Amino acid sequence: MPKVHRLCLVGFGNVGQAFARLLLKKAPELAVRYGVSATVTGIITGSHGAAINPEGLNLEAALDVYETGKKLDALSTVDPPEEAQTFIRTCPAEFMFEVTPVDPHRGQPALQTIKTALSAGMHVITANKGPVVHGYQALTELAKQQGLRFMFESAVMDGAPIFSLFRQPLVGANLLGFEGILNSCTNLLLGLMEAGKTFEEALDYGRSIGITETDPSNDVDGWDAAIKVAALVTALMGIPLTPQEVDRTGIRGITPEMLAEAKLAGERWKLVCSAEHSPNGLVARVSPQRVGPESPLYAVNGTSSYCQFKLDVLPGLGILEYNPGPETTAYGLLADFLNILEVQ
Amino acid sequence: MPKVHRLCLVGFGNVGQAFARLLLKKAPELAVRYGVSATVTGIITGSHGAAINPEGLNLEAALDVYETGKKLDALSTVDPPEEAQTFIRTCPAEFMFEVTPVDPHRGQPALQTIKTALSAGMHVITANKGPVVHGYQALTELAKQQGLRFMFESAVMDGAPIFSLFRQPLVGANLLGFEGILNSCTNLLLGLMEAGKTFEEALDYGRSIGITETDPSNDVDGWDAAIKVAALVTALMGIPLTPQEVDRTGIRGITPEMLAEAKLAGERWKLVCSAEHSPNGLVARVSPQRVGPESPLYAVNGTSSYCQFKLDVLPGLGILEYNPGPETTAYGLLADFLNILEVQ
Repeated sequence: MPKVHRLCLVGFGNVGQAFARLLLKKAPELAVRYGVSATVTGIITGSHGAAINPEGLNLEAALDVYETGKKLDALSTVDPPEEAQTFIRTCPAEFMFEVTPVDPHRGQPALQTIKTALSAGMHVITANKGPVVHGYQALTELAKQQGLRFMFESAVMDGAPIFSLFRQPLVGANLLGFEGILNSCTNLLLGLMEAGKTFEEALDYGRSIGITETDPSNDVDGWDAAIKVAALVTALMGIPLTPQEVDRTGIRGITPEMLAEAKLAGERWKLVCSAEHSPNGLVARVSPQRVGPESPLYAVNGTSSYCQFKLDVLPGLGILEYNPGPETTAYGLLADFLNILEVQ
Repeated sequence: MPKVHRLCLVGFGNVGQAFARLLLKKAPELAVRYGVSATVTGIITGSHGAAINPEGLNLEAALDVYETGKKLDALSTVDPPEEAQTFIRTCPAEFMFEVTPVDPHRGQPALQTIKTALSAGMHVITANKGPVVHGYQALTELAKQQGLRFMFESAVMDGAPIFSLFRQPLVGANLLGFEGILNSCTNLLLGLMEAGKTFEEALDYGRSIGITETDPSNDVDGWDAAIKVAALVTALMGIPLTPQEVDRTGIRGITPEMLAEAKLAGERWKLVCSAEHSPNGLVARVSPQRVGPESPLYAVNGTSSYCQFKLDVLPGLGILEYNPGPETTAYGLLADFLNILEVQ
């Protein structure tokens, strides 16, 4: 009988639910290929209650309950704490998956939740950029002290392997800088506006497919892109950087006329993220730029994203994530889990 | 005192020499960052002799000797065997780096050299596609039996991490297919012809910068691309495939008129490599295709290469290697070495 790993989920929105579905789908393969078995012993949500079952929750039932708009509490075999910190201390699990929405300015409450989980002896896996940017060093050190891991593959470019790429595959390499398109929402909006929609029409369409939030300022003003730049610089270049320190210009200044003019010239406006060492220190930037078809950024459309890294040993290594969704983010969480287990 | 790892090199052309330079350049960093120290105890070449020094050869001297067109033998402290199999059995080393030219049809003599090294107790690292395609399973099994590793990161897309990407970063994922531009030479030739050169003029230019071989048929007829497709399918999809089994069309049929017509339509001809599962089994192909600026292949020019992977968990993950050279291939060899040592 292989050991059954116990997981708890803090957050059960699109990503948390996609992860639950992926676990269900991949369970037989993980057992056969790696001898890995996992069960979810607890889920806590913002507005749909919480559930703990030390023997393992029925994930199909959890997904059903959630989809019908009911509360998870019905599935719980104990009286579930409604507050995340107490929930973590109560839930019997070795892995905590933190998949709540991002707070770009302080990284809370995720930062506190992750500290609590690490202190309680759980490995932590998050898809949340907030705690990476606002707590990378402290959380990594706390994890190390505890003999645990703090992993966050899905925090940038969904499930595309970025942080893990810089572990074994790029061993011995030094990252000098990068340039890319890291915010799907603005990339989609610019594409829609290039195709003739107004900014407001583009926003409405983005909202209708769930890409744009009710208040779009986090994306449109470049905050989401800036926090991703900060996360990459912090974790991959070893330079602590906050989103506030990124030289940031959003897409509000890009008019339909500018898009039309670029199109006539065979070019496109893109919200370009970059960071690079310079004689005056690190220059990190988010700003709209015109790119032509000779740039790898030109063909990055819809919700796809791209980042090209400049290393001391490789002049340019580009990673494209084509057409991601919550399922790809869920895969990044699974990859972190399997890498903590060091399966082969 | 950290252990000094002893390496021997079979082949000392552009890649072998670039690896020697990289070792020299990175030595202080490897010592400080990973506690790793390495020395080259033997080098054997096709036409510049061989040298063995159990205490470690002077790599600067080896590079100098080679550049002046002399023989390496002058550096040897023992009478160096001139034949590779005997050289391997004589040279005191724990790692054998195989960096000789590719034989696409049989993978020899690299295949035999690698078997000898594994049997002699050495880990093997190669930049050579031949033994991967013609001996992947046998060599991997032999290495496993011996408690050793057979690594070949640099065999496809130079030093860009492809094979290592499918170890930890893409753990738990299944590769369904891929599409890309894997042969730099034909990509360069097509670009030059698009810019107005004739096929012969393009070949001459390619030869002048060392990209095109005297006999260009290996590239032009799609063999190099086919062997790369076969290597990816064999190692990443677990399906043994020979270059001969790849449905292969080279670029000889692409005329200046076809290139001009594509250009007028805003498109380009590219030699596209692909493999995908189909109801009738695996379909692996190398063929010229017209691509437009909406394709990520359009902007892959010069000697750059690109491959987009389709996985069960990620709809599209693209890897671009921009502007590679022997130095990037050398880095792939170094990454394999460090990964065998499992440094962190």
